[in-house]
Amino acid sequence: MGNSIGNLFKLTTFGESHGPAIGGIIDGCPAGIALDFDAIQYELDRRKPGQSKITTQRKEPDEVEFLSGIFEGKTTGTSIGFQIKNTNQKSKDYSHNTNVYRPSHADYTYDKKYGIRDHRGGGRSSARETANWIVGGAVAKQFLKNIKINAFTSSVGNITLGKAYQQLDFDETEKNIVRCPDKNTANKMIELIDTIRKQGDTIGGIVTCVIQNVPIGLGEPIFDKLHAALGQAMLSINAVKGFEYGSGFEGAKMKGSEHNDLFNTDETTKTNLSGGIQGGISNGMDIYFKVAFKPVATIMQKQITIDSDGNLTEMQGKGRHDPCVVPRAVPIVEALSALVLADYFLQFNSRK
Amino acid sequence: MGNSIGNLFKLTTFGESHGPAIGGIIDGCPAGIALDFDAIQYELDRRKPGQSKITTQRKEPDEVEFLSGIFEGKTTGTSIGFQIKNTNQKSKDYSHNTNVYRPSHADYTYDKKYGIRDHRGGGRSSARETANWIVGGAVAKQFLKNIKINAFTSSVGNITLGKAYQQLDFDETEKNIVRCPDKNTANKMIELIDTIRKQGDTIGGIVTCVIQNVPIGLGEPIFDKLHAALGQAMLSINAVKGFEYGSGFEGAKMKGSEHNDLFNTDETTKTNLSGGIQGGISNGMDIYFKVAFKPVATIMQKQITIDSDGNLTEMQGKGRHDPCVVPRAVPIVEALSALVLADYFLQFNSRK
Amino acid sequence: MGNSIGNLFKLTTFGESHGPAIGGIIDGCPAGIALDFDAIQYELDRRKPGQSKITTQRKEPDEVEFLSGIFEGKTTGTSIGFQIKNTNQKSKDYSHNTNVYRPSHADYTYDKKYGIRDHRGGGRSSARETANWIVGGAVAKQFLKNIKINAFTSSVGNITLGKAYQQLDFDETEKNIVRCPDKNTANKMIELIDTIRKQGDTIGGIVTCVIQNVPIGLGEPIFDKLHAALGQAMLSINAVKGFEYGSGFEGAKMKGSEHNDLFNTDETTKTNLSGGIQGGISNGMDIYFKVAFKPVATIMQKQITIDSDGNLTEMQGKGRHDPCVVPRAVPIVEALSALVLADYFLQFNSRK
Amino acid sequence: MGNSIGNLFKLTTFGESHGPAIGGIIDGCPAGIALDFDAIQYELDRRKPGQSKITTQRKEPDEVEFLSGIFEGKTTGTSIGFQIKNTNQKSKDYSHNTNVYRPSHADYTYDKKYGIRDHRGGGRSSARETANWIVGGAVAKQFLKNIKINAFTSSVGNITLGKAYQQLDFDETEKNIVRCPDKNTANKMIELIDTIRKQGDTIGGIVTCVIQNVPIGLGEPIFDKLHAALGQAMLSINAVKGFEYGSGFEGAKMKGSEHNDLFNTDETTKTNLSGGIQGGISNGMDIYFKVAFKPVATIMQKQITIDSDGNLTEMQGKGRHDPCVVPRAVPIVEALSALVLADYFLQFNSRK
Repeated sequence: MGNSIGNLFKLTTFGESHGPAIGGIIDGCPAGIALDFDAIQYELDRRKPGQSKITTQRKEPDEVEFLSGIFEGKTTGTSIGFQIKNTNQKSKDYSHNTNVYRPSHADYTYDKKYGIRDHRGGGRSSARETANWIVGGAVAKQFLKNIKINAFTSSVGNITLGKAYQQLDFDETEKNIVRCPDKNTANKMIELIDTIRKQGDTIGGIVTCVIQNVPIGLGEPIFDKLHAALGQAMLSINAVKGFEYGSGFEGAKMKGSEHNDLFNTDETTKTNLSGGIQGGISNGMDIYFKVAFKPVATIMQKQITIDSDGNLTEMQGKGRHDPCVVPRAVPIVEALSALVLADYFLQFNSRK
Repeated sequence: MGNSIGNLFKLTTFGESHGPAIGGIIDGCPAGIALDFDAIQYELDRRKPGQSKITTQRKEPDEVEFLSGIFEGKTTGTSIGFQIKNTNQKSKDYSHNTNVYRPSHADYTYDKKYGIRDHRGGGRSSARETANWIVGGAVAKQFLKNIKINAFTSSVGNITLGKAYQQLDFDETEKNIVRCPDKNTANKMIELIDTIRKQGDTIGGIVTCVIQNVPIGLGEPIFDKLHAALGQAMLSINAVKGFEYGSGFEGAKMKGSEHNDLFNTDETTKTNLSGGIQGGISNGMDIYFKVAFKPVATIMQKQITIDSDGNLTEMQGKGRHDPCVVPRAVPIVEALSALVLADYFLQFNSRK
Repeated sequence: MGNSIGNLFKLTTFGESHGPAIGGIIDGCPAGIALDFDAIQYELDRRKPGQSKITTQRKEPDEVEFLSGIFEGKTTGTSIGFQIKNTNQKSKDYSHNTNVYRPSHADYTYDKKYGIRDHRGGGRSSARETANWIVGGAVAKQFLKNIKINAFTSSVGNITLGKAYQQLDFDETEKNIVRCPDKNTANKMIELIDTIRKQGDTIGGIVTCVIQNVPIGLGEPIFDKLHAALGQAMLSINAVKGFEYGSGFEGAKMKGSEHNDLFNTDETTKTNLSGGIQGGISNGMDIYFKVAFKPVATIMQKQITIDSDGNLTEMQGKGRHDPCVVPRAVPIVEALSALVLADYFLQFNSRK
Repeated sequence: MGNSIGNLFKLTTFGESHGPAIGGIIDGCPAGIALDFDAIQYELDRRKPGQSKITTQRKEPDEVEFLSGIFEGKTTGTSIGFQIKNTNQKSKDYSHNTNVYRPSHADYTYDKKYGIRDHRGGGRSSARETANWIVGGAVAKQFLKNIKINAFTSSVGNITLGKAYQQLDFDETEKNIVRCPDKNTANKMIELIDTIRKQGDTIGGIVTCVIQNVPIGLGEPIFDKLHAALGQAMLSINAVKGFEYGSGFEGAKMKGSEHNDLFNTDETTKTNLSGGIQGGISNGMDIYFKVAFKPVATIMQKQITIDSDGNLTEMQGKGRHDPCVVPRAVPIVEALSALVLADYFLQFNSRK
């Protein structure tokens, strides 16, 4: 319950940041896919801590070991087990947290739900878990060779990339540490994060994702609409507070005569406020959506909070944390997109 | 695939607007609940067409017949089958649509996915389906007696209710036809919808939902976070383009030092930007979220579109459609909220 | 929970024998199948009560009404709702059962599990439910046109059909009322059931099922082996106490050198003790299995039992019940086989 | 697909006998269970190869490493990852099998289904997988402290334990290497297996399982009957050809007047041909069932078979294999029983 995503292409995960390893099982990956292991490691490197001055300075190699389901470099169709060892857990960073509830963390809710909690680094609620998703997503990406998934940072705090995605060159995304494909905006974002970091504070932001070359017909009617699955996946990421696709919240202000996407005779549409999905089913146009991230809760400033006995106490973040999650969230958004699409592609296939 | 919501408290549905009936099966409702059938019909009446001048003028009584799972007025714990007869389908309203793809409808995607399509009223993609959800949700509400679920219209086009939900009296919601609990704003919204309607156009809007008295501990870690399930449910509603909870997209602009919800010594929090959920698990504070609806695609204006052979053709909506779905969406948002909470309550219960 | 079978081709059901109707929803049936409604009714007629002197004399027409998912005679790919009205419920037949626990019925366990029970005809535990399975299975059969599913009565009490299925002509099965394709054995079975019936007693029996032309590769490794799914389905039928496939319990007495199915050069096997499935996956040979049914618990003899207060009481069956379920179970075994195969066929398809 | 068992208490597994490790994820185990790790290892030791002269002589320590979900010896309620390293894979034992289809193995079906196959030791179809189940089951057993699960060998070939389980002392089961709680019968079984082994042959057998102290009310109506879930689980074990519970196939020969379990006034029943389950729901009496195992397909005798090109070829088992799986299957049957019961216990709990 709660540790799996997908039905036919399914990832199930385990692991806390301070145990021996995290890992997962990919179930349902079709047989015969020749895996590019460097590409998988590349995705892990995009997510890993310590990659730049605007991320946490914690260092972890995040190397994935595959344990099954692959024979002579190819998937065998059976379940793919994998693990990533935890090499840099410093439990003493958290020793001061034993029974303190950090504000806006999951400490309190885990304690109340389970009555027991691994207080080192957030236990299961740690974002370390997302490394597992990267592995699953990287395998899914290789299964979905023809589909292009590009996410990027579109906002940090009040700094917003003002261009439509069609004006962007996605090849620029990886050329700066904030992963915004517009150089000028990127520089402003980096500067802002750096300033915030020096204040011992954190800042929120938005990731936009564009998915291209999706076959027509992915998505199931009613409760398994394609965008609903994407939304659920994105809302699973730590710190996410909102999801919108196509026209999104702006669409709520519009009139039908403005919003309708009129057809061209080749069955494409002149506009794409629908965001590539109509009635929950992909229509072959680009799918695009935005994911809103709140600021990281761990700040390097003193905060008053309570412990598990209800006593007031003062605390200050001592671990190595991100001043802004958005740059490292970019590959995570892509990975979850790939997992959802792989699952829906198999569902689509089943009825062909 | 695609026609069920929930795991332990599960609704599975069927039906098109122009067949003999729609209906569903509620599976997993605990035994011994004395059902208030008037309360169920009341919820259906809130959703039904023809209820006011700002909704479609189509008239359907929308009476639910329960077929099983209830004995002497009480649930028996076995599956509850129900149906709502379609009494007012006018297929001739749609005869002009046989092979025309209405812009921003699901006509095109259904045709491509399935190769066959009931062109009368949208088939399975018709919002008539939501009457089934009302039934499921109304039963779930009775199971969740202590939890209060209040949705209301918070925006229509550019008219936005400027107050925090704490300043509102939810008893006002049903006192006007747009379901906005602030009388002045409601009047402006009604006027706007009426103007739009006269133009043969449609307009989008936003529904806000507040859920109170939720026990601490609902929600599963990682992929079945409570807000992710709410998000997926809301994104299943026809015309929804976005979902945000707590601070939402605004939260993406904030700093951690502003956003963190500091604790009171009674374990409540001073602020509630988290929206009642931390780490995917309810913390006992109010859960609140917003759902963005695009304008209805069927407008009473001429539009150029294509048919299934790719020929350009002119069309104009002739059916009886809503100028704005938001007023009728209010009970739908509540119903899906109740279904999600009932499901998560049972999951929570299973491990107690 | 508990009212669905299948993942991709899924049947969910509702209904008690004494409510207004029973019915179900078939979810996942591919689009474009031209349904033969007479063939569906034919299957229902094979199951219906009152069909011969050796079944219950209760008469019910058992006509299915389809409510959705079909347009101009073809499946549309969306969920297919259906109902069968209960026309002949005589609740007074059961008025004596109000709080009496019939021996070896589900009265006691339902009462303890749910705390409430529809005592008329067994409520949800009534075998009337199996009419829903017939509908689902009949639709599945039409989807699986090339696969041949033939079940028949192979034992009643101590009378056993001594021939291998390869020696039988399945066209003979429907030529007698006990559905045994060997005329002589059939006559002995009919005579036995008639004798038992006159004694006010009941008798058990065995149904054998043979599935031919199954594509190679159906079945999932480990926990969703094809035979395990067939076994679970068969064990869902009222009164079933055992399932075996291929060599079955006899295989437990054999040596490997006797039991191994050696290959022919065309990849068929010389023997088929495996029963058409190896490692949980179909190998293209005939699948065959046996299902053991205990005698019906309702007998027309006096029995001492208890009521819900623990008082001893005397009871005697008064309803109209089958002296032997096996003849009517034959189409049920076929229907569930078809449902399982349709589901596994779609799973197989999804990864092609 | 296919690598998970359970819904609320769920085990998902991975691993082939010749990769670096096998393992799994236990999802849904309630929090706060103090695990007895010795008890888990004890169960693994009961299953491990090389434990006696009548099992395979392959030696593997089969030590489980837990990677998550446990903090200070107690379960935390989050997913429990574990692995068992493969220490003794001798791939050269299988080098002769590269493209040979061993008779009655899964080689052929895996090859046809997936188009690729790890030919070393059967890949995913290897019984090594069952070590994962032992771990899951051993954790489940600790969750189900009050329920007693006792399996034992009741038949090997034609040698059958002639006593009812009530006449047996389950403490005797582990006192001999064949795991039959009747010493005389055990000796005969051991002798038979030893003789068979010397012939380079293998032999089938039957495991009986008795589950006591099950709460009344476990099991879901219709498709998730408790015995159907047990049946599906048992039919998932390699080499299983049949499952029966309560009166089983013998019940098919009986009359209702003989088979009905009459009540005592304390709500127990005088007889228990129902096998502790009525209408799919536990009634508080002992649950008992039998599982039939065919002989192991790998024999140390020459067999003619084909390779993947359809050429005839001669082969002879060279690995180290069991002459009879039944003794090592005893703990596997118990483990799967525990997994099913834990899952159904949580489902039962959810509606209390």
